[in-house]
Amino acid sequence: MNNREIVVTEVALRDGSHAVNHSFTIEQVSRVVKALDDANVPFIEVSHGDGLGGSSIQYGFSNTNEMELIEAAVDAAENSAISVLLLPGIGTVEQLKEAHKLGAKMVRVATHVTEADVSKQHISLGKELGMETVGFLMMSHMVPAEKLLEQALLMESYGADTVYVVDSAGALLPHEVKERIKLLKSNLKVDIGFHAHNNLSLAMANTLAAIEEGATRIDGSVRCLGAGAGNTQTEVLVSVLERMNITTGIDVYKMMDLAEELVAPILQEPQEITKGSLVLGYAGVYSSFLLHAYRAAEKYHLDPRDILIELGNRKVVGGQEDMIIDVASELAGYKIS
Amino acid sequence: MNNREIVVTEVALRDGSHAVNHSFTIEQVSRVVKALDDANVPFIEVSHGDGLGGSSIQYGFSNTNEMELIEAAVDAAENSAISVLLLPGIGTVEQLKEAHKLGAKMVRVATHVTEADVSKQHISLGKELGMETVGFLMMSHMVPAEKLLEQALLMESYGADTVYVVDSAGALLPHEVKERIKLLKSNLKVDIGFHAHNNLSLAMANTLAAIEEGATRIDGSVRCLGAGAGNTQTEVLVSVLERMNITTGIDVYKMMDLAEELVAPILQEPQEITKGSLVLGYAGVYSSFLLHAYRAAEKYHLDPRDILIELGNRKVVGGQEDMIIDVASELAGYKIS
Repeated sequence: MNNREIVVTEVALRDGSHAVNHSFTIEQVSRVVKALDDANVPFIEVSHGDGLGGSSIQYGFSNTNEMELIEAAVDAAENSAISVLLLPGIGTVEQLKEAHKLGAKMVRVATHVTEADVSKQHISLGKELGMETVGFLMMSHMVPAEKLLEQALLMESYGADTVYVVDSAGALLPHEVKERIKLLKSNLKVDIGFHAHNNLSLAMANTLAAIEEGATRIDGSVRCLGAGAGNTQTEVLVSVLERMNITTGIDVYKMMDLAEELVAPILQEPQEITKGSLVLGYAGVYSSFLLHAYRAAEKYHLDPRDILIELGNRKVVGGQEDMIIDVASELAGYKIS
Repeated sequence: MNNREIVVTEVALRDGSHAVNHSFTIEQVSRVVKALDDANVPFIEVSHGDGLGGSSIQYGFSNTNEMELIEAAVDAAENSAISVLLLPGIGTVEQLKEAHKLGAKMVRVATHVTEADVSKQHISLGKELGMETVGFLMMSHMVPAEKLLEQALLMESYGADTVYVVDSAGALLPHEVKERIKLLKSNLKVDIGFHAHNNLSLAMANTLAAIEEGATRIDGSVRCLGAGAGNTQTEVLVSVLERMNITTGIDVYKMMDLAEELVAPILQEPQEITKGSLVLGYAGVYSSFLLHAYRAAEKYHLDPRDILIELGNRKVVGGQEDMIIDVASELAGYKIS
């Protein structure tokens, strides 16, 4: 990590899993990891989109067992460290041990922004195993900065080496990112990270805002291969930071080349900001709500956006999909009355 | 323009002309303008990508005479004003008079950032005709802020109602935008505008930076339908500004709908940041250089990016394409010596 002011974690092979219906192959992972390693990317995350153990009827089955993908990634990397994502409740302690045994060097333990307390066991295990261990606070836009700090402090107390502010819905505005990173930076001893989504075309703006306030760990997805509208586009981020004289240690030309030659062909569709991804960022809700909201809207003759925005206002979280019908029927009722 | 803190000009039907090889049809223009008008967009620009008279062997022929497109746009708009772009040297006084006669209400007179003096005649004519008249300083990243101010003051002195900072290559960084807008804002009496390109994924970041420093006129292209990597995506911009409680007067839902239903099908390819557009933004050069640089690179066994970056460093401008071979041969010579 020497001489890197900003340490990048490439997430296309994990966050991008959503965008390709969990269809990554061993050959794709090997080739992309080899090229990222050659470009000197320090961390490369490989897991099901929903983390270890995500392959399931609920989150979508992986075409290839993720442990085989992790193994292929470890084999292909000479210097890059392979990272895995783990959501307590989805991934298990056993799966983390297995990934570690295969050679994964970093684990990112991800919880909803209000549920850091469920990360204790897994963060502790990561440390015990000698892995670099990150706390990953998802849907960080849903709580005020003070609440976020409280949760980040919990993760720090469990032993996390880094705590990430994760803008899962791509809903944060730059001033909101600044406020959050600044508060964490001045109250935590560990490193601060930031993970963006581009639903509001703000991934780069928010990433620069986070760096300005002291975040040193940044996620990107090459060619924007991530869920929703994708993340901060890695090869573009590296180019921008180079123009700003901020070192990432990553070879700009090699990143541009591998994006075009290796990653673009993997995308099922070019990444753009569609109506669906925009609405999610605008409403600040989980992508899993989209289809449910459209169905409920049809049933109750509503605009699905009104439902999504109301869900966002009520801070409905993943797992509460049954609320969607309640909200729709209420909205329909208001309209009649 | 009442109750609009930010006045948006939609440029997809002009800047997007490049992205579709100048193939816009009367039917496309009519339908899109009608929908934009219904969404309450104040200004809609319709011209060849290189402005009035751009249809030519050098800039690419339009499939449909732009005067017919302008007429169709004027007919389709109830409240929106139709704008035309004019580059002195390409478009003529006669063409501007014709567009005005057809009902165009705004003209934007565009020059290279160091050549504002050639805009005098056309800005004066725009004012004489009673049109809203804008000075449009292209490739604004190529000169220091002080030089930009000098050129903007010239346009103001000719009678421009607004002066735009135009980031033609998508090369400006947010702090560079702030510096430029701030200086113009504190020295000009007229309104300040900003036109972004997304080559470095900074269109939204730069637009917000411009607004923060006092720009009140902003360009966007719906569905990112513009040259290079496209512009600030209009429907996303309107959503973000609404979230920031900054009024544009534009209906967010209608913009989202027309982007998805009417404009997305017009794009020949979804808009994404490719290697080509990224390199242009990174090097800060005209898009017309790209093909020439790739050819020269092949001839001299160079990386085309090295040529483009050197062209950017030397501030080579459009029309100086013959410099590309000179630079390539020099770079190749340095390698041998």
